[in-house]
Amino acid sequence: MSEPVLLVLDTDPSPRLGRLTGRVRVRYTDDRGLAGHLPSADALLVWDFTSDAVRGAWPGDGPRPRWVHTASAGVDRLLCPALAASDTVVTNARGIFELPVAEYVAGLVLAFAKDLPGTLELQRLHHWRHREVRQLSGTRAVVVGAGPIGREITRLLHGLGVRVALVARRARRTIHGIEDLDRLAARADWVICAAPLTESTYGMFDARFFGLLQPSAVFVNVGRGPMVVETDLADALRKRWIAGAALDVFQEEPLGPDSPLWDVRGLVVSPHMSGDTAGWRDRLGEQFVDMYERWAAGEPLVNVVDKELGYVPSADGGDRPPAPRGS
Amino acid sequence: MSEPVLLVLDTDPSPRLGRLTGRVRVRYTDDRGLAGHLPSADALLVWDFTSDAVRGAWPGDGPRPRWVHTASAGVDRLLCPALAASDTVVTNARGIFELPVAEYVAGLVLAFAKDLPGTLELQRLHHWRHREVRQLSGTRAVVVGAGPIGREITRLLHGLGVRVALVARRARRTIHGIEDLDRLAARADWVICAAPLTESTYGMFDARFFGLLQPSAVFVNVGRGPMVVETDLADALRKRWIAGAALDVFQEEPLGPDSPLWDVRGLVVSPHMSGDTAGWRDRLGEQFVDMYERWAAGEPLVNVVDKELGYVPSADGGDRPPAPRGS
Repeated sequence: MSEPVLLVLDTDPSPRLGRLTGRVRVRYTDDRGLAGHLPSADALLVWDFTSDAVRGAWPGDGPRPRWVHTASAGVDRLLCPALAASDTVVTNARGIFELPVAEYVAGLVLAFAKDLPGTLELQRLHHWRHREVRQLSGTRAVVVGAGPIGREITRLLHGLGVRVALVARRARRTIHGIEDLDRLAARADWVICAAPLTESTYGMFDARFFGLLQPSAVFVNVGRGPMVVETDLADALRKRWIAGAALDVFQEEPLGPDSPLWDVRGLVVSPHMSGDTAGWRDRLGEQFVDMYERWAAGEPLVNVVDKELGYVPSADGGDRPPAPRGS
Repeated sequence: MSEPVLLVLDTDPSPRLGRLTGRVRVRYTDDRGLAGHLPSADALLVWDFTSDAVRGAWPGDGPRPRWVHTASAGVDRLLCPALAASDTVVTNARGIFELPVAEYVAGLVLAFAKDLPGTLELQRLHHWRHREVRQLSGTRAVVVGAGPIGREITRLLHGLGVRVALVARRARRTIHGIEDLDRLAARADWVICAAPLTESTYGMFDARFFGLLQPSAVFVNVGRGPMVVETDLADALRKRWIAGAALDVFQEEPLGPDSPLWDVRGLVVSPHMSGDTAGWRDRLGEQFVDMYERWAAGEPLVNVVDKELGYVPSADGGDRPPAPRGS
């Protein structure tokens, strides 16, 4: 039997696949070459997770990879009806980004509580101006998205004394359902978005939502850009409906130099890096090689995406409606 | 018996002493009037903790307050040989600043780990530049000063996964003695100063010390300014001996607009506010009123400063050399 063909939708730097030498034929492609290579590939590694080329290139009923892995937590740039309908298994990089993203969020929240942006601005002006800052402990946060990233954010903020409500699509045990979001957000000091981008989360943070928040509230998005109506957020900040916001993800990335978002007062703009701690690329590569070895050995894959939901469901099954009684 | 006289070395806003109405005669003074009022006062509240007027005004053997309370954690601006030699009790504001300062330090450390200053600078330039950031969990910190503030910093950083070594004047149980500082600092990612200013800590963070640190290390001072040789720190940053620093306290406060420190690359300058969360003034006033009631009732005071050591010693007695055997 010939070695399987692994197609890599590449970016620079390439993944380190040395451990697979001699056991797989690796082919690299860019967006334009993808459609031509897909029919002959057994597995596809979406290493360039910023690409949405798979959507356009996925073969319908023809020969196709049996497994697609993306080096990211979100799969929104990847999934399309044809891929969702096929029997191809999709996996993601669950396990790599949780702690880095949670630390990033904790850092942002503390920076707002302590007005670090104000301090740096005053420092530029050589201006000594004492202010009263906020105590983080005892404040309230709402974390939207109860996947592993949202849960890790919850853990870290809880450790800092924050009272955190975690909101998911459906309520279960200690997790609130989306129907509780408005009520929880209205009394929150911090609203953190760490949800996957799906049809039901697209544009959910809009003028209506920002209008519910306290004037002292701060909104943070480390999920995906299109969940936020950016012009509504900018308006909410300009009108002081809310006190601050931080976006690490955007509707279009990279954010162009002419975007008005750069200059919105109270908004911190960062370049989609919350999860990218030193060595992250190597960790993603190692994770893929481990998964490849399971796959090649015929073992069940982990981190399998539910292609209908658009994310890896929790082990507790709370992402799905309960089965009808007696079924 | 006439009511005791409470002298308040004032600042604006004054403390709220309403609960003491009718039980104490309150007199307010500024620095210049202090010497004239001290002989007739039973107690002195140093509400303007930035003043060092007590040092110059303290009466030698003459009539004097039996109790001095300062609305601050540090007593370095207050203590003088005449006060230290007298039987006057000195108390401080232990209990007010611990959590706010610890949160502030956690915020600074996370901001450096995630390069938030760099993000804000790039945002000003409308420049999208992805960088790899640092994971905080698993890094090493040294906290110098094992009083309640240093211990609270240790607790918070530990909760964020940082391996923290706490250094005090003398080793005890899990706390390192000052003789271990160089060795610990040489492998630390974060060096935090939360020690009291005393003769033995004055100028301890100098070129020799910064020269020991890793090039990736960050130094944070939330103790007192004169513990740091500021020109040596600025040199260490300019020469890239260390990666970053944050000073919340300075040799002279407020820092003048012409100070070269404002513009040192990698240095965050904040206006001595790490402990000052919203409502801090009221909490200081309430704490004093509680202490006053103990004092007026003849009960033992808490937060009593050891005037030789220059701070409130720990309950475990580790601040003092052990008594000689057999004594």
